[in-house]
Amino acid sequence: MEKKISSAVIKRLPRYYRYLSELLDKGIDRISSGELSRQMNVTASQIRQDFNNFGGFGQQGYGYNVEVLKNEIGKILGLDRQYRVVILGAGNLGQALANYAGFEKRGFHIVGIFDVDKKKIGNMVGTLRVLDMAELTDYVKDNRVDIAALTLPKSKAPEVANKLMDIGVHAFWNFAATDLHLPDNVAVENVHLAESLMRLSYNIANIPHS
Amino acid sequence: MEKKISSAVIKRLPRYYRYLSELLDKGIDRISSGELSRQMNVTASQIRQDFNNFGGFGQQGYGYNVEVLKNEIGKILGLDRQYRVVILGAGNLGQALANYAGFEKRGFHIVGIFDVDKKKIGNMVGTLRVLDMAELTDYVKDNRVDIAALTLPKSKAPEVANKLMDIGVHAFWNFAATDLHLPDNVAVENVHLAESLMRLSYNIANIPHS
Repeated sequence: MEKKISSAVIKRLPRYYRYLSELLDKGIDRISSGELSRQMNVTASQIRQDFNNFGGFGQQGYGYNVEVLKNEIGKILGLDRQYRVVILGAGNLGQALANYAGFEKRGFHIVGIFDVDKKKIGNMVGTLRVLDMAELTDYVKDNRVDIAALTLPKSKAPEVANKLMDIGVHAFWNFAATDLHLPDNVAVENVHLAESLMRLSYNIANIPHS
Repeated sequence: MEKKISSAVIKRLPRYYRYLSELLDKGIDRISSGELSRQMNVTASQIRQDFNNFGGFGQQGYGYNVEVLKNEIGKILGLDRQYRVVILGAGNLGQALANYAGFEKRGFHIVGIFDVDKKKIGNMVGTLRVLDMAELTDYVKDNRVDIAALTLPKSKAPEVANKLMDIGVHAFWNFAATDLHLPDNVAVENVHLAESLMRLSYNIANIPHS
């Protein structure tokens, strides 16, 4: 393992990956650090430094090979694997995640969606039928589940996360407005929308208006 | 203006605000840095340092007055104002945002939701009727709009953002999987869900499993 990349660089990798994917989609197979710099609004020297961390595929007068670079970053980000994802909570947010085609493309397969609400159970969300939360334990025991996305009320999320952890789920994408207190060997990525909105209001209050 | 708080501290304020709000909801009106430290999993000395930045209301043997502290942080974050928000895109994600009661409580009022899809226009989302995107310009000219939430496809988001900016909207909550290239006097907060999922897969690939 040659993983000694700093966490500051790691943080920037998803954005690089997104830009490189878009370039490939447009049929662009090579790009200079200068051109990528203009598109991403990051300095060219930062781009070169960042990419040098994992091999530096740029060549003088040629630039970077977009596909090679994208695949390399994808490997570092764990995107060379396939993930099976269940969604807990079939409300609007859960449905939005289930229907977002971009996840499937990156290797995140939504395989199940669960709710406690009798009015939602049995409904179709895309190609999936909403299952009863009461069946969750059996489902996880019978099917590999790599990631649980929690789009539950904050009052329920910690309990459901703990139950899932006990039966072997070790990664959570948490949309509930609360922190999950889980051991260090469990991966948790929080999307706290209310906090995001507070950052926006801070910026509104502090941006110099021309 | 006594705003010389570092951006590292500012970044942590929304999370403090969330915890303090939860304490108040539970009827807890004072708390020590030690207790808050245990709940938030942050060192007590970091909490004390952070809070000292804006007055430091902690008292030896008493702790912090939760409400005073929450209000002070709220003021810094611009939460002492009311914001009028329109949502562009009435899909699942737009509907999820429109229906989330937590935003209203913090002073973010969803006043309009728009779509181009004839099947969605006229439908009710909570108490709002989905309006035709063709009416957006007139709506913004006739009504104060502080924030536009973009839950549109990435191919449409930049164009809609530019149009809104031209008619006076200067804050965007962007859920489209693309960056908006807007002037510095425009506030943009991005929620890039695909990047969030990549951070999770990175953590899955790099967490030491016991």
